[in-house]
Amino acid sequence: MSSLSEAPGELDRVDAAGEVAARAEAFRNWGRWGEDDAIGTLNFIDAAKRVAAAALVVDGETVSLAQSFDEDGPQRGWKKRNNPVHTMTGTGLDHARDPYAQPHGIGGADDMIVMPLQCSTQWDGLGHIFDRGFAYNGRPAGEVVTTQGDSATGIENAAEAIVSRGVLLDMGRHLRPETGELEDGYAISAADLDDCIAAQGATSAVGRGDVLLVRTGQLARVRRDGWREYAGGAAPGLSLTTAAWLHRSEIAAIATDTWGFEVRPNEFDVSFQPLHQVVIPNMGLTVGEMWDLERLADECAARGRYEFLLSAPPLPITGAVGSPINPIAVF
Amino acid sequence: MSSLSEAPGELDRVDAAGEVAARAEAFRNWGRWGEDDAIGTLNFIDAAKRVAAAALVVDGETVSLAQSFDEDGPQRGWKKRNNPVHTMTGTGLDHARDPYAQPHGIGGADDMIVMPLQCSTQWDGLGHIFDRGFAYNGRPAGEVVTTQGDSATGIENAAEAIVSRGVLLDMGRHLRPETGELEDGYAISAADLDDCIAAQGATSAVGRGDVLLVRTGQLARVRRDGWREYAGGAAPGLSLTTAAWLHRSEIAAIATDTWGFEVRPNEFDVSFQPLHQVVIPNMGLTVGEMWDLERLADECAARGRYEFLLSAPPLPITGAVGSPINPIAVF
Amino acid sequence: MSSLSEAPGELDRVDAAGEVAARAEAFRNWGRWGEDDAIGTLNFIDAAKRVAAAALVVDGETVSLAQSFDEDGPQRGWKKRNNPVHTMTGTGLDHARDPYAQPHGIGGADDMIVMPLQCSTQWDGLGHIFDRGFAYNGRPAGEVVTTQGDSATGIENAAEAIVSRGVLLDMGRHLRPETGELEDGYAISAADLDDCIAAQGATSAVGRGDVLLVRTGQLARVRRDGWREYAGGAAPGLSLTTAAWLHRSEIAAIATDTWGFEVRPNEFDVSFQPLHQVVIPNMGLTVGEMWDLERLADECAARGRYEFLLSAPPLPITGAVGSPINPIAVF
Amino acid sequence: MSSLSEAPGELDRVDAAGEVAARAEAFRNWGRWGEDDAIGTLNFIDAAKRVAAAALVVDGETVSLAQSFDEDGPQRGWKKRNNPVHTMTGTGLDHARDPYAQPHGIGGADDMIVMPLQCSTQWDGLGHIFDRGFAYNGRPAGEVVTTQGDSATGIENAAEAIVSRGVLLDMGRHLRPETGELEDGYAISAADLDDCIAAQGATSAVGRGDVLLVRTGQLARVRRDGWREYAGGAAPGLSLTTAAWLHRSEIAAIATDTWGFEVRPNEFDVSFQPLHQVVIPNMGLTVGEMWDLERLADECAARGRYEFLLSAPPLPITGAVGSPINPIAVF
Repeated sequence: MSSLSEAPGELDRVDAAGEVAARAEAFRNWGRWGEDDAIGTLNFIDAAKRVAAAALVVDGETVSLAQSFDEDGPQRGWKKRNNPVHTMTGTGLDHARDPYAQPHGIGGADDMIVMPLQCSTQWDGLGHIFDRGFAYNGRPAGEVVTTQGDSATGIENAAEAIVSRGVLLDMGRHLRPETGELEDGYAISAADLDDCIAAQGATSAVGRGDVLLVRTGQLARVRRDGWREYAGGAAPGLSLTTAAWLHRSEIAAIATDTWGFEVRPNEFDVSFQPLHQVVIPNMGLTVGEMWDLERLADECAARGRYEFLLSAPPLPITGAVGSPINPIAVF
Repeated sequence: MSSLSEAPGELDRVDAAGEVAARAEAFRNWGRWGEDDAIGTLNFIDAAKRVAAAALVVDGETVSLAQSFDEDGPQRGWKKRNNPVHTMTGTGLDHARDPYAQPHGIGGADDMIVMPLQCSTQWDGLGHIFDRGFAYNGRPAGEVVTTQGDSATGIENAAEAIVSRGVLLDMGRHLRPETGELEDGYAISAADLDDCIAAQGATSAVGRGDVLLVRTGQLARVRRDGWREYAGGAAPGLSLTTAAWLHRSEIAAIATDTWGFEVRPNEFDVSFQPLHQVVIPNMGLTVGEMWDLERLADECAARGRYEFLLSAPPLPITGAVGSPINPIAVF
Repeated sequence: MSSLSEAPGELDRVDAAGEVAARAEAFRNWGRWGEDDAIGTLNFIDAAKRVAAAALVVDGETVSLAQSFDEDGPQRGWKKRNNPVHTMTGTGLDHARDPYAQPHGIGGADDMIVMPLQCSTQWDGLGHIFDRGFAYNGRPAGEVVTTQGDSATGIENAAEAIVSRGVLLDMGRHLRPETGELEDGYAISAADLDDCIAAQGATSAVGRGDVLLVRTGQLARVRRDGWREYAGGAAPGLSLTTAAWLHRSEIAAIATDTWGFEVRPNEFDVSFQPLHQVVIPNMGLTVGEMWDLERLADECAARGRYEFLLSAPPLPITGAVGSPINPIAVF
Repeated sequence: MSSLSEAPGELDRVDAAGEVAARAEAFRNWGRWGEDDAIGTLNFIDAAKRVAAAALVVDGETVSLAQSFDEDGPQRGWKKRNNPVHTMTGTGLDHARDPYAQPHGIGGADDMIVMPLQCSTQWDGLGHIFDRGFAYNGRPAGEVVTTQGDSATGIENAAEAIVSRGVLLDMGRHLRPETGELEDGYAISAADLDDCIAAQGATSAVGRGDVLLVRTGQLARVRRDGWREYAGGAAPGLSLTTAAWLHRSEIAAIATDTWGFEVRPNEFDVSFQPLHQVVIPNMGLTVGEMWDLERLADECAARGRYEFLLSAPPLPITGAVGSPINPIAVF
C-alpha cells in the first residue's frame, strides 16, 4: 500500500502502479469545476489574481521564456517528434532577381512550418496524458481524443486563461550554488521546494493561481555540452512525491526547463512519466516543458525578486493536445 | 509628382509607383535605430510604456484576439497558403484499446501541425515585404531573406518586444453605427482615424509605442456569410494615404481584422498592397493581420474604454518572416 | 431485398444499406487467399501474367498516367486534403550568391513535400475503406488501422505486386463519340463495360489479373473548364451494380480518371461511395483514382490496341492506406 | 594539372578543384541533346532499348528496390532532412467507435506524409547539384532553381523516361566474396567495374541506355548494425575517377545502395561530393541513392543473370529536384 509519502526515498520502487494509483485518487480534481470543465487548475486564476499580477510590473522589463524554434533543437525522432522544419515559399533572393516583377517594385517572402506541438517550449494540454483509460474529469480517453483531435479539452480552451503571477523557484542555484545546475536524475522533493521558497524569500511564495516555474539548470548544461539525450534521457525534475505539494498549493500551472518536467529516469524499476499520469488527467494541471529559464533566473537573482507578470497563452489550435508558446515574463 | 496627400481621393490612380515611392522615401526609418536594428518601430516600446500599460489592468479580464488555427480557415492555396493541418500522432482511441499497454496504465496523445506562417492571426515580420530590391533598414533583399530564412530581421528578434499598451479603433462601429461593419473596398483615411479617436474619447488616444488595433468588422461579416474571398479579395482597410499618419503617430505596431490590413482592391488601376511596401520595409512597422477583434470591441464598448495591456509575442521561429500568434488583451 | 441486379435502374434508391450489404456479402473474398492475406485481388497477378504483359511491349513507347503533383491540383481541403505543397530547402539562387561557398564550387538544391496520400494520382490501399466495422479479410477496423497506420494491409504490402497487363476501356469515346466525355452523374453499367470491350475489340478483353483502366473523360473536361468540384462533386463513374462484373472478371485492380472511381452523386437518396464499401474491404480490390488517361487513350486509339504492360508500384510508405503513384504504360 | 586518370591513387588529394574541373569539362554533355534538354543521359534510353528490356522478362518475378518510407529511416536532420512522417487523418479506430456514423456503415481512413524528397530511395534530379554557378546544360543555377522549384529540369520531365534495361554490378560480392560488403571508404574504380562485369558474365555488360545499379553491401551492414552515420558518414562508393567510365559507357542513370553514391570520405583533403559535381550538372546523369539492392542481388546470383527490366519512374512533382521512388526490377 502506498502511504502518499512526500519523501522520495520512501517510494516502493517495484510498485509504480500502486504509487501512481494512490496519488491519482488522492489528488484528483474531477468534477471540481463542473462536469464540462476543460481547463482544470487554470480555473485557479481569477480576475483578482491577474490584477495583482499586473501590479508586479514596475520595471517594464520583458523576458522571453521560449527556446528557439528551428532545426537545431533537441528532438531526435521519438514518436515522430522532429525539430521544427521552417521553409521559405518566397524569398528576397527571388525578388532581387527582378525587383520590378510585381507592381511598383513590391516583393514578398512567405514561409511555413512543420512541427510537432511537443517539439520545443510548450504547454501540454489536458488531453496529452491518460490514466488507465480516462482523460481529465473522468472522460473516457477514446471519446476525448480521436484522430480529429481533443474534442473536450483542446488547447484552444485555454486561449485566454494563462495570464497570471509567475514565480520562479531556481532549484539549480538553491541546491547547487556552486554550479547552478542539478545533476541528471536528481528528484526534487516537496521539502526541496519549500526550502527554496524559504531561501529565496517572500517574493517566491507559491499559492493559488500562480504559474510555478522550476529551473533545474539542465538547459544551461546541454547548451554548453550539446543536446545529447535532452529529449527523453536522464534529467533532473520533480519527484512523484511532489504530487501532494502540487495539489495543495493550488497552482494553476507548472513549467520546467527540461524535456519532461519530472525526474528521469523515473523513480521505479519499470515506469514512464508517473507524475504526468497523476497531475495531468487527474489534477487537471497544465504542464509546461522545455522552457528557457536562464535569463529569467538572472533577472530574478539580480533583483532578489522571484515574482512577475506571466503571459503564456497557447496558440488556439483547435483540438490540440499541446501548443508551442513564447511565454513572456514582465518585471 | 505625388503630393503626399492624406486624402484618398487625391491619389493618382494611374501612378501607383510614384505614390508609393514618394511615401516610401518620406516615411523611411532606415538608420533611425542604428544600422543593426532588427525590430523597427517596436523600438518605440520602452520600459516606461510597459509599466504604464500594465497599470491599465484593473478588471483582470483577458480577451484572446486570435482566430482559430484549424482547417476551417479562410485560406485557399494562394502562394501555397493552406489552412493549418493538425494531425494526431497518438490518440485516446489508441490508448483505450489497451489501457495497460504502457507501465501503470499511462497513455498519451501527441500531435503536429503544418501551417504557413501567414495562415491565420499573425504578425508580418520585417522581412515579409521588400521595396524595389531592399528590405528594412536598407539591406539588399537578397542578402536578408534567402532559402535559409531571414538572417537580419527574423521574427525571433521581436520575441520580447511586443508587450505594450493596445488601443482599439473600432472603425466599423464608428463609421457604420447601424451595422458595425465597413463595406469591402472602403479606404480608411487619416481623417477617419482622427475622427474615431475623437468620438471614442480619451482612452483611445494613439501615440508613441502603442499597438494600434483597427476593427473594420469584415471578420464579423465573413463569419456570418462564409469566408468567400476573405483571403485576398475585396476588404475594407487602411488607405495608402494613412502612411503619414502611421509614421507621425509613432505607433509600435498595427493590426486589423482583415487578411491584408490595407484596403482592397488597392487604390490604383494596377497595384498590389502598396501600403505594405511603404510601412514594412521603409518604416519598419510590424503589421498584424487576421486578428479577431470582435469580443474586444464588445468589451471596449461595454467599458467605454479602448485601451488595455496587450501581450502579443511571436513564436521565436528562427529566421521567420512571420509568426502565428495568440494576442491577449488584459483589462 | 436486393436482387443483385446489374441494371442501375433497378437499384432501390431508398435502400442503400440493403443494396450495399447484399453485394458486400455476395462478392466478399475474405479468406480466399488465406487469413494473413494483405493484397486481395492483386493475388490474381501471377508470374505468367507478368511474362505475358511484358510480351505486349513492341513499340517501346512509355506513357505516364500520373497527374502533376503540385499546388495547382483539385483539392480544396475536405478531410484536410490539400494539394501537395512542395518547398525548397536549398536553391540555385542561394548557390549563385556565392558559387564558391562550398569546396570546389559545388552547390546543391534540396526540397520537401507535404501531401495527403489521397491528393492526386493514387492507389487506395485496402485499409482505406471499412464496412460496418470491418476491414478487408474480416479484420476489425479498429485493430487494423490505428493512429500508427495500417498494421495489416499497409500499402507497402503491394510494393512488388502491381506489374501486369493493363487494359483501357475508353468509356468516354465509346459512349459519347462526339465529345469523348461522359457527363457528370453518368453511371457506367456492366452492360456498358461489355459493350465497350466488344466495340474496342479483342485487345481490350478483360480477365484475371488485369489492371483495368476506365476513362470517363471528366479529366479532359476539368482541364478545359477548371477544377471546380472535381474533388468530390458530381462525376461519371461506375455504378454500384458493376460490383458483380468487377468480381467475376477477377481483375487485379481498377483505376479511373475521376476523383472517386464510382458515379457521383451516388445512386441513392442518402449514400456515400457505396461501391467503395463493397469492393475495397469486401472484394479486396485495389482502386486507383485521379489517373490521367488522356494521352493513353490517344495512344490506344491510334494503335487500335487497348492493352499494354502496366507498372504502377506504390511507394512503400509503411502502414499507409494509400500511395501517390506514377503509373507507366509501356506499348 | 589533372590527368583525368582513372586510377584513384593518382588523384591529387590537395587539388579537388582541379581534379573536379578537369573532369567537369571533359565529360560535359551540355548541348548534346539540344539547348532545351531537360533529362540528360536519360535520352540514351530509346524505344528499341525498352523493347529489348521488356524481352528480358522471362520469369515474371518482381523485386522492389525501395527501402521503407517511415520514421525508422537513416535521416538525422542534416539540411532539414528528417525521415518521412506519416500521419493518419482518419483511422479504423475512429470508425469502430460508431460504425454506422456514416451512411450504410461505410468508414474510411486517410493519411498524409511530410518528407524531404531526398529522405529515402530516390532519384536526384538534374537540378539537385550545381557546378560553379551553373546547372545542367549550362544554365545559370539561379535561373533554374528558385524558391518556386526547378523551372528547367524539374523531375517531372523524367516522368516517362525511366523504363529500361537494368544491370546489377554486385561490387560487394565481387570484391569481398566472404562478406559481400565493401568496407566504408572503399573507392570503387573503373577497373573494379570492368572486373566485376567480366566476373559476372555477359548478362552484366553495361552500355548505352542502361540503368546501372551498383551494390556495395553497406545497406546490409547498417541493417545489421544500426543506421549510425549511413546518412552522410563514411561509405563505400564510386571514385571520382570513374567519371570517364560513366561517361563513355553512355548509361542512362546509376544508383547505389548508399546515401551518396560516391565514396565517403571523399578522395581529397577538403571536398564535398566531387563526383556529383561532375556527373549531375555536367554529364546530366540521373543518380539514384539509398536503393535496396539486397534481394535483387540474391535473385541475380541465384539466376546467374544480372540484367532485368527496370521501371523506376519518379513522381511528377512539378519543379522537384528529386523524387522518392519504388523502382521495380522484373525478371
